Amino acid sequence: METNRHDRILLAHGGGGKLTDDLIRHHILPKLKNDTLAELGDSAKLNLTSEKICFTTDSYVVKPLFFNGGDIGKLAVCGTINDLAVAGSRPVALALSLIIEEGLEFELLEKILTSISRAAAKNNVNIVTGDTKTVEAGAAEKIFINTAGVGVRLPGVDLGCERIAPGDKIIINGTIGDHGMAIISQREGIKFESQLQSDCAGIGELTCKLLECSRGIRFMRDPTRGGLAATLNEISRDSGLSIEICEGEIPINPTVQTAADMLGFDVLAIANEGKFVAIVSPESADDCLEICRNHPLGADAGVIGQVVETRDVPTVELMTRIGGRRIVQMPYGRELPRIC
Amino acid sequence: METNRHDRILLAHGGGGKLTDDLIRHHILPKLKNDTLAELGDSAKLNLTSEKICFTTDSYVVKPLFFNGGDIGKLAVCGTINDLAVAGSRPVALALSLIIEEGLEFELLEKILTSISRAAAKNNVNIVTGDTKTVEAGAAEKIFINTAGVGVRLPGVDLGCERIAPGDKIIINGTIGDHGMAIISQREGIKFESQLQSDCAGIGELTCKLLECSRGIRFMRDPTRGGLAATLNEISRDSGLSIEICEGEIPINPTVQTAADMLGFDVLAIANEGKFVAIVSPESADDCLEICRNHPLGADAGVIGQVVETRDVPTVELMTRIGGRRIVQMPYGRELPRIC
Repeated sequence: METNRHDRILLAHGGGGKLTDDLIRHHILPKLKNDTLAELGDSAKLNLTSEKICFTTDSYVVKPLFFNGGDIGKLAVCGTINDLAVAGSRPVALALSLIIEEGLEFELLEKILTSISRAAAKNNVNIVTGDTKTVEAGAAEKIFINTAGVGVRLPGVDLGCERIAPGDKIIINGTIGDHGMAIISQREGIKFESQLQSDCAGIGELTCKLLECSRGIRFMRDPTRGGLAATLNEISRDSGLSIEICEGEIPINPTVQTAADMLGFDVLAIANEGKFVAIVSPESADDCLEICRNHPLGADAGVIGQVVETRDVPTVELMTRIGGRRIVQMPYGRELPRIC
Repeated sequence: METNRHDRILLAHGGGGKLTDDLIRHHILPKLKNDTLAELGDSAKLNLTSEKICFTTDSYVVKPLFFNGGDIGKLAVCGTINDLAVAGSRPVALALSLIIEEGLEFELLEKILTSISRAAAKNNVNIVTGDTKTVEAGAAEKIFINTAGVGVRLPGVDLGCERIAPGDKIIINGTIGDHGMAIISQREGIKFESQLQSDCAGIGELTCKLLECSRGIRFMRDPTRGGLAATLNEISRDSGLSIEICEGEIPINPTVQTAADMLGFDVLAIANEGKFVAIVSPESADDCLEICRNHPLGADAGVIGQVVETRDVPTVELMTRIGGRRIVQMPYGRELPRIC
């Protein structure tokens, strides 16, 4: 069936003329509407509550575009919010940039924009500025999304690996590996695919609550690409301290574990989006855990290990369920392209 | 000749593990080094001089990657700086996000990063945060770059189309069409290609000087995609006023005009990057022009027309050299994909 050419994105929609204007005014703006964006200036003008800000960027190339628990739009909003959140700021504004392959169905674009809009509203941020480019069929795969973000740093909060000390506890706010295994299993078409669901969510509300209620938080990071293994290795390297985690304490959804075992992946190295690792002082661990467990995104939170003195080189070690110890390596990287 | 696999980007360079870390620490960081970026946090922490900021984003998909007068890296820095500049801010920080096709030569990546570094230094901004993704061969074309930017709004400066009044003068800081015609002619391989050079440059220094010295500036915009024709139509529509420009006053490089005529393009609709249109009060026009002409990026500046009352609908009209008048339409958009 031949489709009407207005059902699909044309190269000319990126040409900067009338069609670009139509695309922005009739398809993008109605979905994302807010006063700042509606000005359609070269830049958004923002009046923040502080001149101390966090600033971040992430491009999203996830494949498939839609997966159990989310889609590229929700991911692009939540991922950038989370980078702002774990750095100790309250996310306030996002910039949205689309690279669209000629021929993309408008229907698909609108589904993604609806998802972006919902995720932004849910996380109390506005899309305040944007950009749209088109490329020829074959020069990109459907759509790539970049979101950059600005957050206002929480007063009195100063997170950094240099603040970490031996004895500090390691908290994670829930099960690991859900996002990555949902994507991989969907790509592989394995049979329990439908039981796997991405944890894709914005954690800014929870991290702000934690940072406002507790002064014992030393450092936070979200274990996305490279998973918990990469994040803990980075923290160990940057703090110069070693880390011990207990296999039995790491929350893992059994279906995620089964899927990972079946496909030969280490859950520790699988990407998350909706999780944070927090390094907290020993005396604040219980309070932090309680704050987490009272929030929908922290119901499965747990203390998974602690920071210890380094004997030789900073190392991440896993205490296995059967009483052994193994080094958790920095993943090499072969694992998974296009997971986010 | 078989190339060593480390000569090229692998998918695993985007995996979030050891290879991503190598790419960032050994290839990207040394080129762009500054204290904020070197922290490699999830977000950059910035202490600005004001909580009134501008925030913008642009993705760059220009083809070819290297062209007379610039390359995708220089363009990505200058383009985003210019969006901040024309909104009335001093650009201070950029976020850099790369989407790289598997197989891209490291040598090419390093050339682009060197160019980014030079352009950032020249324009007095830092790349403070970034992201790197890889996609399979064929899923993108070599490299796409996103830059988002933060600028600090100049005190007392308030630009907006609602401030424009009949009688205001229209200033442009130099010749139009250079960027677009350099790209197109290089793609078409036309014979005087080597005489065409992109105007790609960062105009933040000049716009800051103008805004600091003159209170008569009502509005500025950079005529990128869609060229001068799109920008003037946008200004006319958003202000509700009409615009008259004089063909004989518009600075155009003769080679650009010849190339455009030969290939059937209207120079008014061709993209620029390094130009701004400023709408200024009649009494401040001479001062503004002098400030421009004393700056290397404003040597060919001129008053090209003026704002007039609207009789029927807001219209942009060109007074031709031979005494005629023609409507300058909003370009439709077919013109030119991947020009920036």
